[in-house]
Amino acid sequence: MAQYRVLIDANDEKGLVYKVSSIFYNHNLNILSNSEFVDKESNKFFMRSVVDGEINKADLKNEIEAILPENSSVKIVEPNKKNIIIMATKELHALGDILIRHEAGELEANILAVVSNYDLLESFVSKFDIPYITVSHVGLERSEHETKIIEAINSFENVDYIVLAKYMRILTPRFVETFEDKIINIHHSFLPAFIGANPYKQAYDRGVKIIGATAHFVNNNLDEGPIIAQEVIHVNHAYGWKDMQRSGKDVEKVVLSRALKLALEDRIFVYANRTVIF
Amino acid sequence: MAQYRVLIDANDEKGLVYKVSSIFYNHNLNILSNSEFVDKESNKFFMRSVVDGEINKADLKNEIEAILPENSSVKIVEPNKKNIIIMATKELHALGDILIRHEAGELEANILAVVSNYDLLESFVSKFDIPYITVSHVGLERSEHETKIIEAINSFENVDYIVLAKYMRILTPRFVETFEDKIINIHHSFLPAFIGANPYKQAYDRGVKIIGATAHFVNNNLDEGPIIAQEVIHVNHAYGWKDMQRSGKDVEKVVLSRALKLALEDRIFVYANRTVIF
Amino acid sequence: MAQYRVLIDANDEKGLVYKVSSIFYNHNLNILSNSEFVDKESNKFFMRSVVDGEINKADLKNEIEAILPENSSVKIVEPNKKNIIIMATKELHALGDILIRHEAGELEANILAVVSNYDLLESFVSKFDIPYITVSHVGLERSEHETKIIEAINSFENVDYIVLAKYMRILTPRFVETFEDKIINIHHSFLPAFIGANPYKQAYDRGVKIIGATAHFVNNNLDEGPIIAQEVIHVNHAYGWKDMQRSGKDVEKVVLSRALKLALEDRIFVYANRTVIF
Amino acid sequence: MAQYRVLIDANDEKGLVYKVSSIFYNHNLNILSNSEFVDKESNKFFMRSVVDGEINKADLKNEIEAILPENSSVKIVEPNKKNIIIMATKELHALGDILIRHEAGELEANILAVVSNYDLLESFVSKFDIPYITVSHVGLERSEHETKIIEAINSFENVDYIVLAKYMRILTPRFVETFEDKIINIHHSFLPAFIGANPYKQAYDRGVKIIGATAHFVNNNLDEGPIIAQEVIHVNHAYGWKDMQRSGKDVEKVVLSRALKLALEDRIFVYANRTVIF
Repeated sequence: MAQYRVLIDANDEKGLVYKVSSIFYNHNLNILSNSEFVDKESNKFFMRSVVDGEINKADLKNEIEAILPENSSVKIVEPNKKNIIIMATKELHALGDILIRHEAGELEANILAVVSNYDLLESFVSKFDIPYITVSHVGLERSEHETKIIEAINSFENVDYIVLAKYMRILTPRFVETFEDKIINIHHSFLPAFIGANPYKQAYDRGVKIIGATAHFVNNNLDEGPIIAQEVIHVNHAYGWKDMQRSGKDVEKVVLSRALKLALEDRIFVYANRTVIF
Repeated sequence: MAQYRVLIDANDEKGLVYKVSSIFYNHNLNILSNSEFVDKESNKFFMRSVVDGEINKADLKNEIEAILPENSSVKIVEPNKKNIIIMATKELHALGDILIRHEAGELEANILAVVSNYDLLESFVSKFDIPYITVSHVGLERSEHETKIIEAINSFENVDYIVLAKYMRILTPRFVETFEDKIINIHHSFLPAFIGANPYKQAYDRGVKIIGATAHFVNNNLDEGPIIAQEVIHVNHAYGWKDMQRSGKDVEKVVLSRALKLALEDRIFVYANRTVIF
Repeated sequence: MAQYRVLIDANDEKGLVYKVSSIFYNHNLNILSNSEFVDKESNKFFMRSVVDGEINKADLKNEIEAILPENSSVKIVEPNKKNIIIMATKELHALGDILIRHEAGELEANILAVVSNYDLLESFVSKFDIPYITVSHVGLERSEHETKIIEAINSFENVDYIVLAKYMRILTPRFVETFEDKIINIHHSFLPAFIGANPYKQAYDRGVKIIGATAHFVNNNLDEGPIIAQEVIHVNHAYGWKDMQRSGKDVEKVVLSRALKLALEDRIFVYANRTVIF
Repeated sequence: MAQYRVLIDANDEKGLVYKVSSIFYNHNLNILSNSEFVDKESNKFFMRSVVDGEINKADLKNEIEAILPENSSVKIVEPNKKNIIIMATKELHALGDILIRHEAGELEANILAVVSNYDLLESFVSKFDIPYITVSHVGLERSEHETKIIEAINSFENVDYIVLAKYMRILTPRFVETFEDKIINIHHSFLPAFIGANPYKQAYDRGVKIIGATAHFVNNNLDEGPIIAQEVIHVNHAYGWKDMQRSGKDVEKVVLSRALKLALEDRIFVYANRTVIF
């Protein structure tokens, strides 16, 4: 007996729950948890079921696809560890939080490597017996540098997610397309406020009383991919922008780790630049 | 075409989602939203579906009951306004918040009356054209007083919920049994901390940095019924216990109104002194 | 013996706390609470002291001014009720929350009137024996309408604050200048995200996981005055924009009432488009 | 020119701010920040000033003490790193968060050692070049074991704080007295709810909708020392007690690190089993 996550993304029509659950019933599967959501406006149906039983994955997938409308997506996933690569630049907090959670067994993930444009974090990362790959951008054009980064990533097989743990270089559309739907970023701001550079300085200048962080998938528009998680903390007049930045780190690491956990547990569906999260 | 809420509380067994959704499908019902939860430990299954279609309520109920295990409960509820009675003592904030929401059309409720042991709130309540019934406890034994309160409540028909909006008298088991599963209370504390009298004084003495409020159904053990909603706010050393009390009012009214809204929308299931909330 | 709030806004220099507190000491005043803040970057000093004793307000003010750098501001305020006018359009929740707090004695304020461009809220407001003035904008140019609003407000004396409790018309620079530093607005968004019309629709389209509200003083740039208070709530994929709007109301009323309370207690200093809040 | 923190704890009387600030003024000190609090009920005065200038610490301390009432305490502290020892048992999350912050330069602390009753965390801690001392309790009476722990701690000099990062053994009064006012604990619960063993199981059984964590100084009554920081997260019916425990870890580490930071920055005053935090 094994556990499987059945992930369905379909155009909505009457009877989908009935039809899918009848297949589960006929295969004598035990439903451990079941979440559905219908977006009436866009007529989209999403379902995530965790089932327990003996199945042939390919057969079950085919059987479910057969009863769904066209252009549906069915994934049947075992709850195994996923392979992730972390990218970072100079800051330790978000990367460190992921490494500690990994060490503590909190994450369903193998960390294949940390890739950075600096070697500053190498001695830290190497404590954890995780490969650290420095791809310096010095003297390289953006596209050349990115080619080398892509090569470094592609030297690993079956990469499920690329986690940008405060990787501070802008990614080109080529990079994003190469790893479509696989890149999770932490933006050091409560998006869509303070898009772009130094959001803490922007937030300070605006005199805000709350600062936040946003984890999102990366698409081709900077800071505009589908949002996975957001969190905020209160600040006051005594916070200069560097104090905001310092406090912001605590939110950033919490939000990024939360988003990563959701991704690793296959809880996120993406459509229309938004996410459904079960 | 009308909307119905189908509420199922059953012992879990394989196929319940399939069987219930097949009935919906056969009746050509449109599922607007669907929530299920299985408590593996106690083997309990809960389901709340909002469906749209033409049905005979009694027939549908029978049909669903027929496919469920014994001792199951099925309710089919139309999204009509429920009848509530509010009980209060001297404080305005929680009562006032409900009256304003009622006035603003935010609540699916008819407020039949406000019942109090004082007449202090009468002029306020009467602004809203809601009957105000004073049942003074002066000179009465607790049981006599409660008999009169029960009579006042029973002078209304079809009372769905009794909302204790800072009603500061202890209720006896007789009262609770008379209105079983119908009494919603706001406790001015983050239960189970600070049970009993003057929780803000207790909280102050303990030097807490957070205070909270708890909305719960009332059962026979004071402050121990199933919790519906809780919320907190941060305080600091500058708060005396009266400041805590003052700030606490804001949490109390938010939490009570939230719990009431959940009840009015039939989103709460109760079992084993806990709640499932969809 | 009476209580006074001493409010100082000055360019910073060494010895200000010493010099001010020596004056308090020489007058034999009891300091009930004392807050100071220095913004090093802009070299600004702010102080709010609550003192208890017998003073001549004008003399004390002169004495303090004499020891402060040029261009300083000193206010000595008794903790009396301030006079406020509330402006609203069609929505009840934020206005209602203020009226209930007023009724419950939670606000240090006299509500002189509610001014609206519709008569929709009149029957509600009149329950509270508060004058309701409808100034319809129908058939009027913006400036004509605003002239009439200003006249309505100016028919009252000593107006301390104008509270925009979801007043949905844009105000011109003339209005803002007429009541400079006196207008408090609730913006139904977590500023600076979603400036302008229908922020809930904007927030929904962006797929955010948090929505918020911002109370701020109004200056000439729409939605850009100094922020007083902000708060947020979490939302998820099941929230359509109308659900966000509905939930947003709860944040709006909390934030507006919190900002109003801070203003009534003379806890807000404004400089450089930001606020210091003691 | 150097920075100093002046920490005053005195019985309140008129003129304290004046007298202290006059001393600062006479020494030509620059006040970088200044916080005062008077607890009227207990007549206690607290002040924390950060000043900048050239002083003789002992002289300044004497001078301030001379103008304070009897039984006052004055400390003048340079913002140097403090020496801490961390105690842990089996869990990594709270310890790991401190180590990462230390590594990232976020903490004003030297970590002298980690002391544990198990060797489970040794390989992890040794990555960070921090001494790990296992003092097994196996085969020892509580007092014998504690004697060895005390010896291990006392093998280091100038220990400022002992941080219990999920150290799961009960400490005796002897231990607490040995390190009076120096022990910071994280209690995996929102105190005073769920005192004692397995608070997550208790919380689950009670059906709470919020769980929390409390950082506090340790005194002789288990879980009853002065509270430094508290935080909560929302949970729902889908959380079993192990899910609560898992989520609770995130709150625990946040709260413990926050409390430790406050202690390292000399922001905490303790009196009457409560804390004043500037």
